[in-house]
Amino acid sequence: MHTPDLADLCRWARLPGINAHRLLAAHAAGIHSVDEARRAPSSLWRQLGWPISTQKALSNPDDQPIEGDLASIEQHALRLVAAGDPLYPSLLMTIDHPPAVLFVRGDATVLATPQLAVIGSRHPTAMGARTARDFAFHFASLGLVVTSGLALGIDAAGHRAALLARGKTVAVCACGLDRTYPERHADLATEIASCGALVSEFPPGTPPLASHFPRRNRLISGLSVGVLVVEAAARSGSLVTARYAAEQGREVFAIPGSIHSPLSRGCHQLLRQGATLVECADDVLSELKNISLNQLAGDTLNPPDPPSEAAPRLDNPSEILLDALGFEPTSLDALIASTGLSSTSVASLLLTLELQGRAASDARGRYFRL
Amino acid sequence: MHTPDLADLCRWARLPGINAHRLLAAHAAGIHSVDEARRAPSSLWRQLGWPISTQKALSNPDDQPIEGDLASIEQHALRLVAAGDPLYPSLLMTIDHPPAVLFVRGDATVLATPQLAVIGSRHPTAMGARTARDFAFHFASLGLVVTSGLALGIDAAGHRAALLARGKTVAVCACGLDRTYPERHADLATEIASCGALVSEFPPGTPPLASHFPRRNRLISGLSVGVLVVEAAARSGSLVTARYAAEQGREVFAIPGSIHSPLSRGCHQLLRQGATLVECADDVLSELKNISLNQLAGDTLNPPDPPSEAAPRLDNPSEILLDALGFEPTSLDALIASTGLSSTSVASLLLTLELQGRAASDARGRYFRL
Repeated sequence: MHTPDLADLCRWARLPGINAHRLLAAHAAGIHSVDEARRAPSSLWRQLGWPISTQKALSNPDDQPIEGDLASIEQHALRLVAAGDPLYPSLLMTIDHPPAVLFVRGDATVLATPQLAVIGSRHPTAMGARTARDFAFHFASLGLVVTSGLALGIDAAGHRAALLARGKTVAVCACGLDRTYPERHADLATEIASCGALVSEFPPGTPPLASHFPRRNRLISGLSVGVLVVEAAARSGSLVTARYAAEQGREVFAIPGSIHSPLSRGCHQLLRQGATLVECADDVLSELKNISLNQLAGDTLNPPDPPSEAAPRLDNPSEILLDALGFEPTSLDALIASTGLSSTSVASLLLTLELQGRAASDARGRYFRL
Repeated sequence: MHTPDLADLCRWARLPGINAHRLLAAHAAGIHSVDEARRAPSSLWRQLGWPISTQKALSNPDDQPIEGDLASIEQHALRLVAAGDPLYPSLLMTIDHPPAVLFVRGDATVLATPQLAVIGSRHPTAMGARTARDFAFHFASLGLVVTSGLALGIDAAGHRAALLARGKTVAVCACGLDRTYPERHADLATEIASCGALVSEFPPGTPPLASHFPRRNRLISGLSVGVLVVEAAARSGSLVTARYAAEQGREVFAIPGSIHSPLSRGCHQLLRQGATLVECADDVLSELKNISLNQLAGDTLNPPDPPSEAAPRLDNPSEILLDALGFEPTSLDALIASTGLSSTSVASLLLTLELQGRAASDARGRYFRL
């Protein structure tokens, strides 16, 4: 198998009209690099369904200034994760036009871990920011990755709470990862890179143009099993993300608030459109358990790379619980008795294991190991 | 046709197991009074599907102390409205076991006017009470009758706002109308009787037993085209009313609130179960317009009694609008132009006319007179 080098990946990333599916189809057709694509007959381009923009770019050899990309990648220690890479989140493959290549700063392995988006207003109320913190802290403590957009307000509250919980968090950016937007979140971005990852589909040097934010938003939802909107005004970018989430088949959660608060309007609009009303973090987790978790987890988790590597170590209570779990279905009560853990802990840990595709429950609510 | 006298009606009201449908079936079978029922062969009782409780009561001639009822009726100026009476609300006939006889103190004609229930906690927040007032005031101003349970808190706020708006209000009681429960609402009850009605299915002398409240609640929803729950704790009588409303096919509206307020729990529970989220009174009215209003209005409104009587006079802007409305569909803009009324007034008045079955709209949103 051809392993694309960094320069190849940069070229694919900059080739317009090439999404993850088109990249995989190109590989399947024996086209592993953009140079090979250039040399291929234009009949093959058309056969692969490449749009005019792609064909035009391939005809213009000066189109790809990747030297700068390579320098930025080295300078900022970026990793490139292309479609087909075991770290490429398979949940993302289910959206329209998944990026062919993701630029990642930090730990790229978190991308393949179940993520929950926590998003909302850039100008939340104090209570809204506290709610975002409380929910995100709870999710991150349970091993869910908190994904958001690095924006001021709710986004930052979510990221910070995940860091505080010593959990993982992913920030999806609307610009190249050689810069931070907003600039005042440069320190936060550094912290996120050390305990999670910053992700962008935009090559280094790309400015945070307004048109990039909806694209960024579709990745936030696309990476996540669900999207929680904490506070949002009536016409808010968070509603764009929620719409993408609904279109992508992701669960949308919204927190209600006073009818006198303009920052509840957006959430109320989502609730009218069918979002799940949540009052506490456990409401989100219960709903995620109700949907086809095993399928989601199975879709999300890629096999470890290389396959012979051991599965990631679980934290201690999870290990205790996993030891107690057999392949025969066991009741929650029996698990509580045999582990000595609290019922809340056991329920939470089971959810995490389910999300990780390491446990499942039967129709009678009994759990077993996968 | 046999016109039952007051003593007959009292006896029917006290005969256990006789609901509105059974009363009408008895009339259809030629049984117009309880005395006639007593004299009828027990085979007819069984043929009419009367339960054992009814048959037992009919076999015991000492069962009906109606002299006290007649005295109370005179003392408190009660009116009895039985199934088959033009004032008996036909919307109520659609519920399970509608009462055979309603005791009414005040203006019985309001029963046949479209009603909207405004209910909620007996111990609301200041904001919740204000919200109930604002919504109820708006509904009552538009000619909708505000129906509630005369309880402390939200109920009383709804009744009082309707009175303040010089609108109509109905209080459904869980005891006989010779008393007021809670006692401290005696003055409010007197005001309601002068601008609307108090209604009960319980004969005079009946105490407000706990078991009567769910029965009262089913009448609140049964009389109404929709039920608005303003604030309610997690286990609240308002949720019982809302459940009845849903079972009876009535629209359920709930106002969201902070996830930190215990008095929003009940509303959030209803929203999860499919209630319509409303942020302002107009949200309720829009939703009511969306459902089959003409049908509801047609069901609710009985022909005036006697039929030759003129239709009730509309207030002045309504008359102006009605004059402008033709039998040919007319656009909202044209109506605004021809009446000189504001668009908000025209829209509100049209809703009232629709609810009264005097106007309707076509698929293109144009209005015409019925």
